[in-house]
Amino acid sequence: MGIAVQSIEEALPYYEQVLGFECYNIETVEDQKVRTAFLRVGETKIELLEPTSPDSTIAKFIETRGQGIHHIAYKVEDGVANALAECDEKGIRTIDKVPRGGAEGLHIAFLHPKATQGVLTELCEE
Amino acid sequence: MGIAVQSIEEALPYYEQVLGFECYNIETVEDQKVRTAFLRVGETKIELLEPTSPDSTIAKFIETRGQGIHHIAYKVEDGVANALAECDEKGIRTIDKVPRGGAEGLHIAFLHPKATQGVLTELCEE
Repeated sequence: MGIAVQSIEEALPYYEQVLGFECYNIETVEDQKVRTAFLRVGETKIELLEPTSPDSTIAKFIETRGQGIHHIAYKVEDGVANALAECDEKGIRTIDKVPRGGAEGLHIAFLHPKATQGVLTELCEE
Repeated sequence: MGIAVQSIEEALPYYEQVLGFECYNIETVEDQKVRTAFLRVGETKIELLEPTSPDSTIAKFIETRGQGIHHIAYKVEDGVANALAECDEKGIRTIDKVPRGGAEGLHIAFLHPKATQGVLTELCEE
């Protein structure tokens, strides 16, 4: 779950002290102009996304829609490149044509929200 | 994960045939004027929410923000009533003051998005 926040520092007390999740990693993804904080909830990861620049896509998201849930990511078993090929076969439009680098050293690719009923959807592999 | 969709019938092929998840239950929650379809992904449930009336909160959400991720729900171990009391102690504003009935016979309550950096957050118990 990717969640857009103005400030990781302001958001973390809610996640750590109210929901009781633990932040195990904070890193900056220069490419995407975001700082990310990761928390684990069972099998699921929550990724808080803070813009590091006003022209970050996360800054624009917050400007137009406010803070909130930004995207959902699924781990794929057989590689992102294969998943993209499968999407192409099935007529599912994607934003990325080839995998690119994401936070935590993952290979990632985004599907197009028009193909996913408005849900920005990321595929990722370790 | 609660996801607002115009039509469960139109959304399901993406979830079942592209993402490969299985829909195991469809039910109507009269109280909330929604029809819901549940799919399981590991420990996580995806709940597709289709409005059954134009004055459903989901219809209004789609009208103003478009289809997409609507809310996130966490299962609480010690009961929703206790969780609400804890939120109250910690100064976390909630929409519900007492648990109410949700889909799948769960007891649920919503926190206020102002207390959760814009993420509509549900607590639930079986």
